[in-house]
Amino acid sequence: MSDSVLLFPSSVYADRLDRATEIIHQQGLSGMIIGTGAEFAYLTGSWVSTHERFTALVLSADGPASIIIPEVDAGDLQQSAVPDLDINIIGWSDGDNAHLLAAQQFHSDGPVALGSSLTTAHVLALQNLLAPRQSQLASRILSGLFGTKDDAELEQLSGAAQAIDEVHAQVPQLLQPGRTEEEVAKDIEKLILEKHSAVDFIIVGSGPHGANPHHSFSQRVLEVGDPVVVDIGGTFGPGYHSDCTRTYVVGGVDAIAQAPAEFRDYYQILYRAQEEACQAVRPGIPASTIDNIARSIITDAGYGEAFFHRTGHGIGLSTHEEPNISADNDLILAPGMCFSVEPGIYLSGQHGARIEDIMVVTEDGGRRLNNQPRELR
Amino acid sequence: MSDSVLLFPSSVYADRLDRATEIIHQQGLSGMIIGTGAEFAYLTGSWVSTHERFTALVLSADGPASIIIPEVDAGDLQQSAVPDLDINIIGWSDGDNAHLLAAQQFHSDGPVALGSSLTTAHVLALQNLLAPRQSQLASRILSGLFGTKDDAELEQLSGAAQAIDEVHAQVPQLLQPGRTEEEVAKDIEKLILEKHSAVDFIIVGSGPHGANPHHSFSQRVLEVGDPVVVDIGGTFGPGYHSDCTRTYVVGGVDAIAQAPAEFRDYYQILYRAQEEACQAVRPGIPASTIDNIARSIITDAGYGEAFFHRTGHGIGLSTHEEPNISADNDLILAPGMCFSVEPGIYLSGQHGARIEDIMVVTEDGGRRLNNQPRELR
Repeated sequence: MSDSVLLFPSSVYADRLDRATEIIHQQGLSGMIIGTGAEFAYLTGSWVSTHERFTALVLSADGPASIIIPEVDAGDLQQSAVPDLDINIIGWSDGDNAHLLAAQQFHSDGPVALGSSLTTAHVLALQNLLAPRQSQLASRILSGLFGTKDDAELEQLSGAAQAIDEVHAQVPQLLQPGRTEEEVAKDIEKLILEKHSAVDFIIVGSGPHGANPHHSFSQRVLEVGDPVVVDIGGTFGPGYHSDCTRTYVVGGVDAIAQAPAEFRDYYQILYRAQEEACQAVRPGIPASTIDNIARSIITDAGYGEAFFHRTGHGIGLSTHEEPNISADNDLILAPGMCFSVEPGIYLSGQHGARIEDIMVVTEDGGRRLNNQPRELR
Repeated sequence: MSDSVLLFPSSVYADRLDRATEIIHQQGLSGMIIGTGAEFAYLTGSWVSTHERFTALVLSADGPASIIIPEVDAGDLQQSAVPDLDINIIGWSDGDNAHLLAAQQFHSDGPVALGSSLTTAHVLALQNLLAPRQSQLASRILSGLFGTKDDAELEQLSGAAQAIDEVHAQVPQLLQPGRTEEEVAKDIEKLILEKHSAVDFIIVGSGPHGANPHHSFSQRVLEVGDPVVVDIGGTFGPGYHSDCTRTYVVGGVDAIAQAPAEFRDYYQILYRAQEEACQAVRPGIPASTIDNIARSIITDAGYGEAFFHRTGHGIGLSTHEEPNISADNDLILAPGMCFSVEPGIYLSGQHGARIEDIMVVTEDGGRRLNNQPRELR
């Protein structure tokens, strides 16, 4: 609810718009229609939100860039790079056909790429007006742009990672026996907000709850020796996200011996899987290789069934974006790509563990952005 | 982040699913694909969220109902009516084609109706697999179901309205000269959370900020005699929304004389426009009539240009839904429909005013759910 802040100089956004326009020409598209959200913010610096009302950046192969927006919200574009960019603002009011205002920007016959945040009503209305042009998903076409982060973006993601590391540094002392997951989560919420502008999610999964990777937190009371999966993330400044998981044992180092024996055993396997997957990150290999490395170590140890999600996801202006680090993604890693490496082992009804760091692909390898200890503690 | 609570008995959801299936047959559809969110919650009682991963209720004209959901999130459906309903749960894991699992439920050739919450990637993937079937927007087809609230739903919306009324009752004492809009907003946030499960939005628009209907709040310091538009809403229990606006003058009744003279004049016009529009609500007339009544009073007084948004919007499990109370909506009002009546007058750079109540259409007229005083104070 606070005013947004322009993250980079306007020239950065001008350059991104130029590159998006180049892609339109290279791909023979009529253009792109990008709804509000991360893609819109990437190209314009604006996080404007108009709820269900249609707002979009329209890039046409043969016309000026424009933003279609409810007249009443157009003022919000002032807090962005938009006033410095070569973009026509086209305001609409109740009674106007906002989708038609977008469709009228297209004059050639190629397909139109639609941004990922548009919802059904907008997609169908646009398709109807743009027919017989085909529609495509813009995200995949733009992934060369969004997927590789420049130095200024990496600085933001690094800042986000440090901010969440500072929270994890304080988590062990919060995990006291007798406290509930919810009490711990409320403390974590305050800590996240000290260095972030918003809390994205908080998972405090103790005991059997650690076996549900999408648990949030509950009234369950912590006991000495409980394994606890703590997966937390927030929004750093006006846009970049943090996301980091550590698994702890309630009661600290002295209590590790009281954790379930099987948990202690598979944690060592998980630790090695995460470590070797992170070490393998380098440009030129498919994303699936990273998944395969983590998965084969866990599978060879007999826990393949207990690791039932992808190894990681891209992160940037969205918490989840390309590249997926999964068995079916043959995308070749390139310098500047950022993603999580977060294998897990989950024994339903018993306990679970996950270790997650954000990695960036460098010119000759990979670099972890999260640096809190990964050993059981 | 808290666990959801089942709002109504499972039989309510079973009945809603039966009625949706009837509509599928009546309209000659192959079926419907409803993504997570308000429509999904209306039909199943579940607010499950799986982020960008595909989850949908699939209703087929010639097969059982099913929910396609990531395996890892399927457990969340337990906290809903789903276990008591005749719905197949089809879990998917990374590597599966989740959209294909949905498309395989359709066996006839009619159009497929898509729920409003699906985003571009899901819409395009589904269209590709469902071709040559046409796709339609499910929301419009289902509006006969969603649009008219039964008594149990009206009780929830009434509870939401009372909860926000109790906040407005305390707003005058918060609007002290020397305080910022943000300080007032933080107090309102706490008050909303006393009777709601979440804050949806807070607008504290003082002086010139009152002329922007989509302002949130800022560091502007309140002065005696400032007009202030306060538009607030929250989520009541697990789903229904409140939304109510009052316009105040800082310093209370004694300070009204210090408010700008033109503001005091047009507030009386606005008051009459809102009152007469509310009084006109009854079944059998088009939604546009309510808009026309408010708009013509304001236009006749010379402020037509200063009232540049629709008169209202439907409300229920979403803050904004059908019916729109706008000049172009010829939908005939029927008992059980709920919507806001919220005309405004905005003088850019100077000040503004808005009065908003939630109305429900009754058998023979209309009933206001919000009951805080509307006179300037």
